[in-house]
Amino acid sequence: MSKRIGKQTVELINRPKIISTGTVVGPKEGEGPLSKYFDVILEDDKNGQETFEKAESSLVTTAVNKALEKANLKNTDIHYIFAGDLLNQLSASTFALRGLEIPFIGLYGACSTMALSLSMAAMNVDGEFSDYSIAATSSHFSTAERQFRTPLEYGGQKKVTSQWTVTASGAAIVSSKGGEIYPQITHVTTGKIMDYGITDANNMGAAMAPAAVDTIKQHLRDTGRTPDYYDVIATGDLGSYGMELTKKLLLEYGYDVSKVYIDCGVEIFKENNGDKSNPDKCGDKCLDGVMCGGSGCGCSASVFCGYLYKSLLNGKFKKVLLVSTGALLSTTTSLQGESIPGIAHAVAIEFGGAKC
Amino acid sequence: MSKRIGKQTVELINRPKIISTGTVVGPKEGEGPLSKYFDVILEDDKNGQETFEKAESSLVTTAVNKALEKANLKNTDIHYIFAGDLLNQLSASTFALRGLEIPFIGLYGACSTMALSLSMAAMNVDGEFSDYSIAATSSHFSTAERQFRTPLEYGGQKKVTSQWTVTASGAAIVSSKGGEIYPQITHVTTGKIMDYGITDANNMGAAMAPAAVDTIKQHLRDTGRTPDYYDVIATGDLGSYGMELTKKLLLEYGYDVSKVYIDCGVEIFKENNGDKSNPDKCGDKCLDGVMCGGSGCGCSASVFCGYLYKSLLNGKFKKVLLVSTGALLSTTTSLQGESIPGIAHAVAIEFGGAKC
Repeated sequence: MSKRIGKQTVELINRPKIISTGTVVGPKEGEGPLSKYFDVILEDDKNGQETFEKAESSLVTTAVNKALEKANLKNTDIHYIFAGDLLNQLSASTFALRGLEIPFIGLYGACSTMALSLSMAAMNVDGEFSDYSIAATSSHFSTAERQFRTPLEYGGQKKVTSQWTVTASGAAIVSSKGGEIYPQITHVTTGKIMDYGITDANNMGAAMAPAAVDTIKQHLRDTGRTPDYYDVIATGDLGSYGMELTKKLLLEYGYDVSKVYIDCGVEIFKENNGDKSNPDKCGDKCLDGVMCGGSGCGCSASVFCGYLYKSLLNGKFKKVLLVSTGALLSTTTSLQGESIPGIAHAVAIEFGGAKC
Repeated sequence: MSKRIGKQTVELINRPKIISTGTVVGPKEGEGPLSKYFDVILEDDKNGQETFEKAESSLVTTAVNKALEKANLKNTDIHYIFAGDLLNQLSASTFALRGLEIPFIGLYGACSTMALSLSMAAMNVDGEFSDYSIAATSSHFSTAERQFRTPLEYGGQKKVTSQWTVTASGAAIVSSKGGEIYPQITHVTTGKIMDYGITDANNMGAAMAPAAVDTIKQHLRDTGRTPDYYDVIATGDLGSYGMELTKKLLLEYGYDVSKVYIDCGVEIFKENNGDKSNPDKCGDKCLDGVMCGGSGCGCSASVFCGYLYKSLLNGKFKKVLLVSTGALLSTTTSLQGESIPGIAHAVAIEFGGAKC
């Protein structure tokens, strides 16, 4: 029995559940309107470590351990961990996880990695290869600046279309166990690499928008759903500019997502108008200095594992489509004049999603 | 029904088949004793491209297209491609595959990536998420030197424990279709990250050997098999020094692999004593200049997709355990004084492997 529906989507017949999440964010992310949804907010973005890279690893460890602790599980209960990050050779993840003794699958999808790791963990559980799998990812403002742009000491200026790499990690435990009280992963739509020839590394939203559009469109076509089937369709981190582009392009394909559409990169850094307890009261303006909004794997990881997951648990949302988006460039490819391909992966998380 | 057997192994009940492979190697690899098993041998390791990085991408495209052509399939027949390489942000794979329009899962396991991508493609097919999935990877001597060591122009000297990054790409099509004439993937053992504190980046064999030992030992324990169940146990690219270490350590655990054990890094560069047509006639000495032998994702990719796969097809081997090995360092982690964690993933490929 094939689980495939349509061109790029599979339905997960066994309905893997997300039984727990763990999140940790940096001080700046803790100033945003989603602060109450995060498990740990750092006071120091070095988290007591010698280097930013080691700090990022410590975030991954913190998020994974939080998720384990909340599910009352030990590392030895976990059959696989699917993880990756933005650093060269996934060093934030591998150095964080080397002590955990869990079979490790390293993934790279740039900022799409949270939806990618959730997709893979969900298929793994659905295919009966594991009872418990972890999906995790991270990013850190200062490691990303050093690796992709310029060292912080250089004081490089941001452009209006730039985004601010989120310092955060999120981990989710996906399981065949647990009852209907947990949100279930019902569908996975895996993205293709899209390249519309964008070469401006300060405008990643534009580079990633076509990938988000393609994956959302394909998900809706494959499942026969309309945008308003979902309470929320959340793109990973297109920022305010990429978000507008995505809305407009989807409308050209006949899909009006405007009523349910949010972007994790915009949500995490929305100016909260002094009311931290209610993200719905925020306007569309972002915190000072973050320009178009947040980016980095840790962005959709922390927003999903924090705000969206907890809003599923508390009944605010019943059906969420997470569409993390990634820009697949490297400093070498940019120096060699290459364009910036994008990718987006979608995961549907629901209560009581009808089985096909 | 769980497919798990033992601690780290799953049995693939539906027996996904490897119905086709494609390989391409550089000129130096074409001088070794496995040359007749490769589909394409380049005369120029830039393959007519402007840069070594673009050349590496062109290798991936060549290997994937060869595999598709031999299976008489089109890109639109393929449901997923699982691929990765050594370059930062997997740029060899992503730039190679952006035109193919196949849902893409980016993987990173350093030089373990071939067994990792085969594992993931096999579980994906076994779990009925796809009819056809591709596993692919690549490496290139000159992109790896530039990224991990020094530019070629610097003329850095190799140490006696060094290895030579293989210029090659291999791709395999894994499918639920096809009859008993094709070798089947019966078991997957996913590795944990092992770190024995090795810090010498010129001695990767020693850094990766404990991971190979751990995964082989766990695979044999989980399946209840002895080493001589297999015609060949092939580690990815430990080189001659890491290979000896692995044999010795496994013997301490009570497993004598000496009769069936080869290392892809040693095989690909063995001096062929003037008889290119018979790798069995080679001694243990490697070609001049490659020191301990080959390394890089492309090493076990080309040796598996070339020599081992074709030897399975022609009946020379019936049962092969591929154990690709990776060293999970980055230049940043080494500069920050970190040790080199290793990982190894194992895939059992057999004819008529008994179902549990």
